[in-house]
Amino acid sequence: MRRLSPGDCAINTATLGFQAPIGEVIEAVARAGFGAIAPWRREVEGGDVTAIARQIRDAGLAVPGYCRSTYIPAADKAGFDANVDANRRAISDAAVLGAKSFVMVVGGLPTGSKDIAAARAQVADATGRLLGHARACGVRLALEPLHPVYAADRSCLSLLSEALDMCEAVEGATDDPWLGVCVDVYHVWWDPNLRRDMARASGRILGFHVCDWLVPTADVLNDRGMMGDGVIDVPGIRGMAEEAGYAGFVEIEIFSAANWWKRLMVETLGVCRERLATAT
Amino acid sequence: MRRLSPGDCAINTATLGFQAPIGEVIEAVARAGFGAIAPWRREVEGGDVTAIARQIRDAGLAVPGYCRSTYIPAADKAGFDANVDANRRAISDAAVLGAKSFVMVVGGLPTGSKDIAAARAQVADATGRLLGHARACGVRLALEPLHPVYAADRSCLSLLSEALDMCEAVEGATDDPWLGVCVDVYHVWWDPNLRRDMARASGRILGFHVCDWLVPTADVLNDRGMMGDGVIDVPGIRGMAEEAGYAGFVEIEIFSAANWWKRLMVETLGVCRERLATAT
Repeated sequence: MRRLSPGDCAINTATLGFQAPIGEVIEAVARAGFGAIAPWRREVEGGDVTAIARQIRDAGLAVPGYCRSTYIPAADKAGFDANVDANRRAISDAAVLGAKSFVMVVGGLPTGSKDIAAARAQVADATGRLLGHARACGVRLALEPLHPVYAADRSCLSLLSEALDMCEAVEGATDDPWLGVCVDVYHVWWDPNLRRDMARASGRILGFHVCDWLVPTADVLNDRGMMGDGVIDVPGIRGMAEEAGYAGFVEIEIFSAANWWKRLMVETLGVCRERLATAT
Repeated sequence: MRRLSPGDCAINTATLGFQAPIGEVIEAVARAGFGAIAPWRREVEGGDVTAIARQIRDAGLAVPGYCRSTYIPAADKAGFDANVDANRRAISDAAVLGAKSFVMVVGGLPTGSKDIAAARAQVADATGRLLGHARACGVRLALEPLHPVYAADRSCLSLLSEALDMCEAVEGATDDPWLGVCVDVYHVWWDPNLRRDMARASGRILGFHVCDWLVPTADVLNDRGMMGDGVIDVPGIRGMAEEAGYAGFVEIEIFSAANWWKRLMVETLGVCRERLATAT
């Protein structure tokens, strides 16, 4: 297993709570010695994407992933098409940013629906439609399975095995290097099949995210913990990813409204550096 | 698929919020025409178990399950042994109550542990130790996989497939009719392998619980919905259980601190009756 240095790691900007403009966030992340940054569309869209890309490059930072897809499942075809189009545009921005992957948080059930299988079919359909554009842009599509607690409203894709099945099922995508998965320890740590599925994911892991599961968890969306503060065996799971050949950035993504988002960016980044060495 | 009547259904007493002594709850459930009741240990232990059993019988109610096991995983052997012993005593009470099964909510990680595989091994070990006593008592052990959101603190057993694997792995328990699973739609509705695993569970389903997943969910523990108020395809999942041969009671178990627990028992029971016909 690698001995991690900050240069091996990316800061997902959500970790810093979107408390400063993207320009300041880029500078803070670079100053703290990290090797990469993963920005969100809310920080990029409506701004000068080319200028932001240049600033990231000039700061010496890579962009492992761009967050994240518009939710795909819709109640009707017009809605579905609009969601696919929004993702197509975001993938173009990802290319401008030099992002290696576009993170696909796929969405849950359309309003009024109880048919999760139909929602999943829409996701597979959309992924197939987006793959050619992503390939042409030089951006990989990274399907991110989310914890089943979000199945209804954020991601009908829950299991790593399910994301891998979808990679294989998307028409013409078998072994396509432009389609893979993003693994976040928060979403998969509990899965009894994790070791098996991580081995199966070999060659498909396009992103690896870390944080921790707090006990108790006050809010399943925005009460995630810093590595070491919860119950996830983060180094153990990183070991599985690296045994499967993953050599990319370890990305720190912590949604923490009541704690880390209230701290100064420099403080949070400092604790991230420490915990990379001691708990990641 | 069966057309459900209240006589086919059990009321889990948690649905009524523990707002009245067990004697009153028994009378209310029987008066509302339900066929069975599933009481909790907090209502029984410290009371006269034989008298409660007689009252349930006299009211014409069956007892499909007794809720629930003491959490098993412990930080040391003394704690583990104490948990096994507490469950042994509760199984004896289940026998007095005439309960068909003892519901095993197995517990999460011991304090300080990040080793979920070790917790699972403790659960399998304890289940093996309890099985002989359960068989001697005439009470089936029903392993209940809980939604992965509870993996850390309530159940390291998350997937139905995992519960079935454990049934097979418990020493000497292959095809043992005294060991099976309890399926609650709240915990498994999102599982992409549900249809496959429910078919595999044929002959092993000892309990079938219903409620609904609300969107949004204010509290993953105590904000469950009445059937029809959320996004779960309850009839679809009941159909899978019945295709797998399940012909036992459909048990309504709704943890709802802010809504149903604040209503009169008679009102909640009336809505349960309606929703059995329209949304279960």
